[in-house]
Amino acid sequence: MKTCTKCGATPVIIHRKASGQMLCKDCFIESATEKVLKNIRRNKLIERGDKVAVALSGGKDSVMVLDIVNSLHERNIIDLFAITIDEGIGGYRKHGVEIAAKNAKKLGIDHRIASFKDYFGKTLDEIMHNESRQHGACTYCGVFRRWIINRVAREENATKIATGHNLDDETEAILMNYLEGNIDNLTRIGVKSEPKNDKFTIKIKPIREIPEKEVALYVIARELDVHFDECPYSRESFRGEVGRFVKELSANHPTIMYSTLKGFDKIKPAIKKEFSGKKVNMGNCIQCGEPASHELCRACLFAKSLNGEQ
Amino acid sequence: MKTCTKCGATPVIIHRKASGQMLCKDCFIESATEKVLKNIRRNKLIERGDKVAVALSGGKDSVMVLDIVNSLHERNIIDLFAITIDEGIGGYRKHGVEIAAKNAKKLGIDHRIASFKDYFGKTLDEIMHNESRQHGACTYCGVFRRWIINRVAREENATKIATGHNLDDETEAILMNYLEGNIDNLTRIGVKSEPKNDKFTIKIKPIREIPEKEVALYVIARELDVHFDECPYSRESFRGEVGRFVKELSANHPTIMYSTLKGFDKIKPAIKKEFSGKKVNMGNCIQCGEPASHELCRACLFAKSLNGEQ
Repeated sequence: MKTCTKCGATPVIIHRKASGQMLCKDCFIESATEKVLKNIRRNKLIERGDKVAVALSGGKDSVMVLDIVNSLHERNIIDLFAITIDEGIGGYRKHGVEIAAKNAKKLGIDHRIASFKDYFGKTLDEIMHNESRQHGACTYCGVFRRWIINRVAREENATKIATGHNLDDETEAILMNYLEGNIDNLTRIGVKSEPKNDKFTIKIKPIREIPEKEVALYVIARELDVHFDECPYSRESFRGEVGRFVKELSANHPTIMYSTLKGFDKIKPAIKKEFSGKKVNMGNCIQCGEPASHELCRACLFAKSLNGEQ
Repeated sequence: MKTCTKCGATPVIIHRKASGQMLCKDCFIESATEKVLKNIRRNKLIERGDKVAVALSGGKDSVMVLDIVNSLHERNIIDLFAITIDEGIGGYRKHGVEIAAKNAKKLGIDHRIASFKDYFGKTLDEIMHNESRQHGACTYCGVFRRWIINRVAREENATKIATGHNLDDETEAILMNYLEGNIDNLTRIGVKSEPKNDKFTIKIKPIREIPEKEVALYVIARELDVHFDECPYSRESFRGEVGRFVKELSANHPTIMYSTLKGFDKIKPAIKKEFSGKKVNMGNCIQCGEPASHELCRACLFAKSLNGEQ
């Protein structure tokens, strides 16, 4: 019978092919937590006195982030609250928002729920049925969601926004941009954002080195309540194709996601130095006052066109 | 009925999804040739007075290179000859060597055939059965093949060695190294080598922007004799996995190989500046005199160990 490489206990709940490690439940939780905390320390993602806003969808990734970052809150190192965006997606979002609320309540932390309807007058479902719609769901969702999270984080004086990007997400994003030759996007991928405008709150990715599989295992092992459904609008076929390939490749090459990430992190400063030197700081949207690279920010531009204005 | 986008003729033999172009045989040959010549001009791969050695395996890629580079030879711009390596692979290589010889003869150009047996005392088949063997076939083959090509090219005073890497090959190599995070290898991929030792002859890749499919179509359209068999030792599973993925992806995203290559070429100078600044020029092997980064070059090291020496 397999025994835990660390403590000898049974049963083993994970066999990490890359390292050969086999871990029991407690040692796995400890190991995953330590990996996340190490990432936080090494990259100075969170420091004493920070007020961290966790972008909490209720899915496994953001629930894992909340759970681990909360350990810093419990030790009075940081202040912490959660933001959940209600995009207004029938048959999907309500359950996620409830789970998010339950998790926040259990930990006794503040929870802000902010909806597309309140901020932009329309649910995502309504946007999808709007005659003036010009983009896919993910485009509107991404722009409006980021706008609201950034606005709420600033209202609450957050110093950091923590998001749930895991190792699979990051590897996919890196490969997609390698494949598309999108240098601009490559310079923007990283464990910690470097805002070009003081109205942006710094974004951090605490679980960036945790494979999706281990995130799922973590929330199960910790018996956390999570929302496992997939968004009904998720149709990003290119990301899907790249994601399936990386997952398949990982079966024979268990370190491939990690080596892709590490290789990218190594060359990124060189790319950034060469390609984003010319860029100046962003201005602010003349309508909403949020950061914008043109007169109007993208959210205001979208909102305007959805209202039938030019 | 479909007609050629350029001249209106029928039948059309290719529909380029990326550009929408449909071409008849003559216009396709002209277009592919022009693409290769443009690459040669733009990157100064070949210049007036060069003596070009084409590394001619007899496969479609090297035969296409020979055919197009020969047009410069016919116009008396350059001197030209071919080198074919006989690795000694039973049931495979002999046919390739014959095809190579036939192509060289038809164009009336000098042809050197050099074998592993002559230079290293062993065929690749013998190496594979050698008790002291420590690597796979592709490793020995690559090291010995490159050693002989470089040696013969220098003996013949070649100023350039032209190889048959096509767009699929290059994209695969770039992605493999992105995935493995192999920065060192990335700095070495390019359309033209920059030798760190004056005993190296500059290597160039004239058909680097031609997709494998179009190379195959070109040799068929030009009615060239080629060797279509696959090497019986070809077992590079990682390259195979990456190659299949890129080909599948190309079906829905017809420009993906090109965008990967262009993106890489854009960031490569930045990576090179950062990561190969410290490297000094190479020395020469104390045994054979060829370029080497250690006392012995890799070919001599391999030959020694295959002879049972330490």
